[in-house]
Amino acid sequence: MPTIEIIGLIAATCTTVAFVPQVYKAIKHKSTADISLTMYLVLMVGLLLWLVYGIYHHSLAIILANTVTGVLVVIMLFLKIKHK
Amino acid sequence: MPTIEIIGLIAATCTTVAFVPQVYKAIKHKSTADISLTMYLVLMVGLLLWLVYGIYHHSLAIILANTVTGVLVVIMLFLKIKHK
Repeated sequence: MPTIEIIGLIAATCTTVAFVPQVYKAIKHKSTADISLTMYLVLMVGLLLWLVYGIYHHSLAIILANTVTGVLVVIMLFLKIKHK
Repeated sequence: MPTIEIIGLIAATCTTVAFVPQVYKAIKHKSTADISLTMYLVLMVGLLLWLVYGIYHHSLAIILANTVTGVLVVIMLFLKIKHK
């Protein structure tokens, strides 16, 4: 695999797993007051559209990255609404 | 432009501008206690690698989306460290 594609994969992994420590923090501290609900709602719309884009282009990388991020964003939305 | 590419552009716009309400909230409430520093640090690494990927592939969409998100993430990192 060309180096630049490996860089792309690491990039996708970083922007996906980045949400894990945020979910962990929200669960641990049971507080999401400083978290923007609008951010996660807009993010969710974007991720769903990326999923449509990835499915159309048969891009496993786009489908996978956006599905995983989507699950983490849904958890954040759930916690945000729960803590309200 | 094909419909699917317009969907891709809207997707990229959503996942980029999503950070604007978070930056706004952090500035307005002067509080980032619930925000994960690790999330924004990992996100920053990912965005920088996406930038390298975009520059290599001469993809203006990838370069633009990740630069704008990068600026918003840097502001969040600055606010997070400032509020510590």
